[in-house]
Amino acid sequence: MKPTAMHIASRNDCLTLDQQDPLAALRQEFSLPEGVIYLDGNSLGAMPKASLTRAQQVIQAEWGKDLIKSWNTAGWFDLPSRLGNLLAPLIGAETDEVVITDSTSINLFKAIAAALHMQASQAATAQRKVIVTERSNFPTDIYVVEGLTRWLDQGYRLHLVDSAEELATAINTDTALVMLTHVNYRSGALLDMEAITALAHNQGALIVWDLAHSAGALPIQLNQAKADFAVGCTYKYLNGGPGSPAFIWVPKRHQAAFHHPLSGWWGHAAPFAMDASFTATPGIRRALCGTQPMVSLAMVEPGLNLFTSTSMDAVRHKSLALTDLFIELVESRCQSHPLQLVTPRAHAQRGSHVSFTHPHAYAVIQALIGRGIIGDYREPGIMRFGFTPLYTQFCDVWDAVEGLRDILDNEAYSPDAERHAVT
Amino acid sequence: MKPTAMHIASRNDCLTLDQQDPLAALRQEFSLPEGVIYLDGNSLGAMPKASLTRAQQVIQAEWGKDLIKSWNTAGWFDLPSRLGNLLAPLIGAETDEVVITDSTSINLFKAIAAALHMQASQAATAQRKVIVTERSNFPTDIYVVEGLTRWLDQGYRLHLVDSAEELATAINTDTALVMLTHVNYRSGALLDMEAITALAHNQGALIVWDLAHSAGALPIQLNQAKADFAVGCTYKYLNGGPGSPAFIWVPKRHQAAFHHPLSGWWGHAAPFAMDASFTATPGIRRALCGTQPMVSLAMVEPGLNLFTSTSMDAVRHKSLALTDLFIELVESRCQSHPLQLVTPRAHAQRGSHVSFTHPHAYAVIQALIGRGIIGDYREPGIMRFGFTPLYTQFCDVWDAVEGLRDILDNEAYSPDAERHAVT
Repeated sequence: MKPTAMHIASRNDCLTLDQQDPLAALRQEFSLPEGVIYLDGNSLGAMPKASLTRAQQVIQAEWGKDLIKSWNTAGWFDLPSRLGNLLAPLIGAETDEVVITDSTSINLFKAIAAALHMQASQAATAQRKVIVTERSNFPTDIYVVEGLTRWLDQGYRLHLVDSAEELATAINTDTALVMLTHVNYRSGALLDMEAITALAHNQGALIVWDLAHSAGALPIQLNQAKADFAVGCTYKYLNGGPGSPAFIWVPKRHQAAFHHPLSGWWGHAAPFAMDASFTATPGIRRALCGTQPMVSLAMVEPGLNLFTSTSMDAVRHKSLALTDLFIELVESRCQSHPLQLVTPRAHAQRGSHVSFTHPHAYAVIQALIGRGIIGDYREPGIMRFGFTPLYTQFCDVWDAVEGLRDILDNEAYSPDAERHAVT
Repeated sequence: MKPTAMHIASRNDCLTLDQQDPLAALRQEFSLPEGVIYLDGNSLGAMPKASLTRAQQVIQAEWGKDLIKSWNTAGWFDLPSRLGNLLAPLIGAETDEVVITDSTSINLFKAIAAALHMQASQAATAQRKVIVTERSNFPTDIYVVEGLTRWLDQGYRLHLVDSAEELATAINTDTALVMLTHVNYRSGALLDMEAITALAHNQGALIVWDLAHSAGALPIQLNQAKADFAVGCTYKYLNGGPGSPAFIWVPKRHQAAFHHPLSGWWGHAAPFAMDASFTATPGIRRALCGTQPMVSLAMVEPGLNLFTSTSMDAVRHKSLALTDLFIELVESRCQSHPLQLVTPRAHAQRGSHVSFTHPHAYAVIQALIGRGIIGDYREPGIMRFGFTPLYTQFCDVWDAVEGLRDILDNEAYSPDAERHAVT
């Protein structure tokens, strides 16, 4: 893909790019606050205008007026799978392979539990006790493995690699499972899903992908990559609203063998028969457990709908143009300052956010936020800027870099004791 | 408590009761559809008028305008514990003993896992492998035990009793855990929490209470009863909205020993430090796992707020008057029909819903719903009617029974093949 951003010398050049942007109209579908340049959609996506309408409909009409009937008439009970089917094409999944439910952590627990169970059930892999992941993975992914394996008490152990290059040797015939996040939450580094999945399979291991920072940000081909399981969140690039329920993908070839310990009635073959014993439903809904938060769940739909008027290739094209431009402008216009790019320069290794280190990263981010330029801080010493092609403009990139340059040139930042951050 | 309803001979008598009802004004705080008598608040509570306003605030201002900042400025991150503290007095819990999070099934999984771990960690109880519950418990509670214990693969087994009377002998020195639902979802039978908890403790067992059908319906004194753990839902008598997140109670005396396998970053001692290993936070927040659905979670607050203008004793007084009246009127005015009361007559054994069997129960319920009288059907052959003292009127009871009588007298119902039900 040809970089678009290498000859941008002025804000007017950026305005020209915005005028030529085939995704420009989508920005009108979002409610964005005045005077804010929002570069944190990788943490919490912005609000689609249709979200409020959808929530009002669920609350006033479906709950307030139709009450209990809405479990059937408004399709509440089917919503996790109906929305999963809307998400499926964005991640290279088939129909009836995805449900939207629970949190990413809990879905990861289900996927890891099911994967370990599959391996333990086969003579050829039953003795495998190693789960390989990156030390730099989002911590909760590691915590979930810790929690599950400590409870199983069957000798499982984590092997943490310090770089993706180590995976080729770390994954071996002791490996039961590889668990990786597709785009690193901190560095923005993108892993090669197809190649690493093949690495795992060549050694007889299964692989679980966490798509939290890639779903809705770039094209994903889960089935084409022959991935085994995937989870991810809907409140970042999918714009589902704060803490909106997460997703889990189980390909059809694994569904019959997908067993996890969170067996609740929504995953039962006959949920309303009130059987005294659990029998998992045959399809993807066996990944469900209990009753879902309908208002937050329903609000996932407006975000997903916005993708129907574009393609993930178009989204990716603009994403790379935005991140290229940001890197280029920061490095050219702030070159006298000690900023260090953390994110890979190669397109094939980059997600949709860009991170730089700076000795006063936290204070600089606070100063930017004070000017309405919203990025975020991640330990240790990292400034993180997310670019959401559906609503981020090229002139936003220019203005953000100008704000950064001005703050750095004038040392217009001050250390601050209290640090908060949310993924 | 003196029955109020025994001398009601007309609808006018019911109107008089409504005029005298000290809770009558609370009905104005709910948005109730015209022409509907809603007797299904035990399944999905009605909508507080303030719920829409609260949702709009979260969506438009907190998400739409303040975006990522709201994790701190709008208190999103603290919301599970802040709302837990609002709920605490309704269930006899102390401050910092309750969080609102995830689903009831998932919270039950955490509580059971933690209880079994506590027992397994002590020499005196480590060999105990039996979990006692009622066969008539809500099935998902049994499924959750099945799912967890199958995975632990440590010899745990369920002992299902067929009546509460059997508990006295079923609970013995093999019992690791007793898991009971306070009010039975089908029969409406209320268990004696304090006596059964003492039974369990006398045998060295721990006890987990599911308060799904009692929280907000009647006074609960978890600490006074010396209960060990409790979970419950907020979308029935607490009116939090469809599928609103559930709660889990861990008393202070058990918090340090509370370990469960769903270890996610929200339960970490330093969630924003991004430590590479899990350390549970000291207090009740160790019962949290991943990111919560903020819109659905925030909507729990308006429902809880409505309880501050009354007392659980006043709620219980009206609840018993309503259920007494319903039983009395059904039995007197529909006496020629084959209706059989399932719910205990004794106040001390009754929750806030009443169930009757009828040979054509499903068809009769459908006919009632067709007339705007909303009860529900439960297998096998049970018609279930819930009474929510915050909004159910005595004249609603009269009108519902008149509707039932008319349908039965005129056989104005027809069998229907398709059966749906939601707890």
